[in-house]
Amino acid sequence: MTGKLYGLGLGPGDPELLTLKAVRILRQVPVIAWPAPDTGESFARSIAAPHLPGGQVEVPIVVPMRTERFPARDVYDTAAGEIAAHLDAGRDVAVLCEGDPFFYGSFMYVFERLAGTYETEVVPGVSSIMAAASAAGRPLAARNDVLTVVPGPLCDEELTNRINAAGALAIIKIGRHFNRLRTLIEKLNLLPQAVYAERVSLGSERLMPLAQVTEDTAPYFSMILIYKGGEDWIHALPGSTS
Amino acid sequence: MTGKLYGLGLGPGDPELLTLKAVRILRQVPVIAWPAPDTGESFARSIAAPHLPGGQVEVPIVVPMRTERFPARDVYDTAAGEIAAHLDAGRDVAVLCEGDPFFYGSFMYVFERLAGTYETEVVPGVSSIMAAASAAGRPLAARNDVLTVVPGPLCDEELTNRINAAGALAIIKIGRHFNRLRTLIEKLNLLPQAVYAERVSLGSERLMPLAQVTEDTAPYFSMILIYKGGEDWIHALPGSTS
Ligand SMILES: C[S@@+](CC[C@H](N)C(=O)[O-])C[C@H]1O[C@@H](n2cnc3c(N)ncnc32)[C@H](O)[C@@H]1O
Ligand SMILES: C[S@@+](CC[C@H](N)C(=O)[O-])C[C@H]1O[C@@H](n2cnc3c(N)ncnc32)[C@H](O)[C@@H]1O
Repeated sequence: MTGKLYGLGLGPGDPELLTLKAVRILRQVPVIAWPAPDTGESFARSIAAPHLPGGQVEVPIVVPMRTERFPARDVYDTAAGEIAAHLDAGRDVAVLCEGDPFFYGSFMYVFERLAGTYETEVVPGVSSIMAAASAAGRPLAARNDVLTVVPGPLCDEELTNRINAAGALAIIKIGRHFNRLRTLIEKLNLLPQAVYAERVSLGSERLMPLAQVTEDTAPYFSMILIYKGGEDWIHALPGSTS
Repeated sequence: MTGKLYGLGLGPGDPELLTLKAVRILRQVPVIAWPAPDTGESFARSIAAPHLPGGQVEVPIVVPMRTERFPARDVYDTAAGEIAAHLDAGRDVAVLCEGDPFFYGSFMYVFERLAGTYETEVVPGVSSIMAAASAAGRPLAARNDVLTVVPGPLCDEELTNRINAAGALAIIKIGRHFNRLRTLIEKLNLLPQAVYAERVSLGSERLMPLAQVTEDTAPYFSMILIYKGGEDWIHALPGSTS
């Protein structure tokens, strides 16, 4: 009997935002795998840490950060091989995923290599866009709004079209694109309608009007929410404490 | 001391998809409020039911279903008044929300009436779009995809523009618009690229190619996912068993 592969959504960062299902599976699998940048610790593993029973085999998937966290083909081939060996030996493997596994998650690179061969279950998790709206204190989308999610690495022209056409909008993966994105949003006269959300649900969370961010870069775990017509309440957000 | 108001995301339906935080708050508040249609039971309450300790005061918010589940102003005024009385008396109140409270949730109608006056916390939950992608077994959005969420009640012209412009797309609130939406998707030659997802994460879940749905209506808790270029794996989905 081969093992089962899980893609385990762990939520946006607060270990209390794991689902009961994710906790149960996390505790029962003999093997966990998790992505980590070559420059630091694994965010997904740190979310899971308080719940780990200890004694599990761990498979780190170390992805070179380079510019865009670009899928490193060899890294995923090797990781998939290692995970497959555990599955072949009958051991279940949970791949730890921050947020929701299928919402822009790197789990897809493991999934596309193994799901055709092994029984696979994806456990959805609380996504960072939902957590960011909760932290901002406003519904991201309501009634018949159209909601658009755009990745920050897109080019200015495409972003402009998307932002103009959108009702509500979230820009994810802003990291090193932060300054370019802010300039673009300002050019579109939407700066007062934009919220900056960093490390949402963690103790180090920062939530403020985008107009008040003084830095020129943003960490990987941050996003921009655009609430058209939201200038008044956004203006009243606490603002930068740093 | 006044009480605290919680908007509690309960996830898409499976009681195991509640977060630890939602379960903790659910067990500790003296008062719970929940929306229910005038025609049947409350979905939100049924998700919470296995976790309720018993003995809590309950505030049903009975919303006339009519055509569009339209926000019934009086109903929310009355419910807000009842909730406010509990908060004034120092009792915390949790409003139960299916999915995530701020993702098209009716919690906003309570929130906009009370959050200015009372301490309010929104606890994000697993949203139905994430759960639907997990059930379909494919990432809804990846890499630099643009993801669009559109409500089914929008008119054909607006839907056509959104569908054409979108990378990945989810159509929510399809209910009585189902037949019109399917006809439109067929006209756009996207029927083979559409997945129908009903009552996701529940025992009664149905997940199949949209092209194989034989009914002309859909229940309230269903959605359509359009995966451009997905015809091959969508074709291989289990299909209708009804
Ligand atoms: C590759 S995507 C993965 C998203 C994740 N699967 C989810 O459902 O939230 C990574 C991006 O998500 C956003 N993100 C994830 N966690 C976040 C957090 N706690 N606070 C702010 N943004 C976050 C950032 O924009 C980040 O660049
Ligand atoms: C008013 S919106 C609320 C969405 C909810 N707050 C969430 O985060 O999923 C209701 C719509 O969500 C979708 N939905 C909610 N739960 C679902 C489920 N279990 N399966 C399929 N669709 C669901 C349906 O399209 C439904 O019409």
